[in-house]
Amino acid sequence: MKVVHYEDVELEPVYAEGAEGSQIRWLIAQKDGAPNFAMRMFEIAPGGHTPYHQHDWEHELYCLAGKGVLVTEKGETAFGENDVMFVDPNMMHNFKNTGTDTLKFLCMIPHEKPVVKKTVNPFADETANNC
Amino acid sequence: MKVVHYEDVELEPVYAEGAEGSQIRWLIAQKDGAPNFAMRMFEIAPGGHTPYHQHDWEHELYCLAGKGVLVTEKGETAFGENDVMFVDPNMMHNFKNTGTDTLKFLCMIPHEKPVVKKTVNPFADETANNC
Repeated sequence: MKVVHYEDVELEPVYAEGAEGSQIRWLIAQKDGAPNFAMRMFEIAPGGHTPYHQHDWEHELYCLAGKGVLVTEKGETAFGENDVMFVDPNMMHNFKNTGTDTLKFLCMIPHEKPVVKKTVNPFADETANNC
Repeated sequence: MKVVHYEDVELEPVYAEGAEGSQIRWLIAQKDGAPNFAMRMFEIAPGGHTPYHQHDWEHELYCLAGKGVLVTEKGETAFGENDVMFVDPNMMHNFKNTGTDTLKFLCMIPHEKPVVKKTVNPFADETANNC
């Protein structure tokens, strides 16, 4: 279990080739015990963008703030606050900030490799105080 | 690919036993071709709550508006706008609106059954106009 404000999760640069003005927070990841997929937040500066690329996993996205375009081989689709986006596996894509404020969106992806479920030791739990 | 404002996705009652004042929007689901997990938005009226229950899949959540508590066997944890939550598989839990406005949060879950990838017919695509 985890409850945290997004600003308390580290904001890291996106070093991927083709990215500009892009930062990421890994809000929920394998290290949290998430067995199937991860939740990240991207923060893109005005004029910035993620890499134009493709991969064999999908994106599920929710825009929290700002204005941008989703670029695919079919062109540009504008989006903004409270828009939901789904990008199919293997689709060329990137996200550009077309506004004057920071563009923020959640981006969920499946784990590349499944998490091996850890054994839980009840004596390591704070509620197990009898030993 | 899908780009849609969340308000353009149908808001449906949550009929599950133990739910009160709870509605759901299935923002991204298997019908959209999502292969691994679904994105839903819950809207809980003041005083309302989801069922107190457990299941063998996890929740990954992001609070968009309002105030609430996450109830587990360990007690109540308050949360609000822009808080991130992870609920482990098999953990007893529910979400209560403790504020005066509608509580809105995203809740992602893995599909219960994997999606069988459909064969894509290129002649059904709008860019394939040569036949």
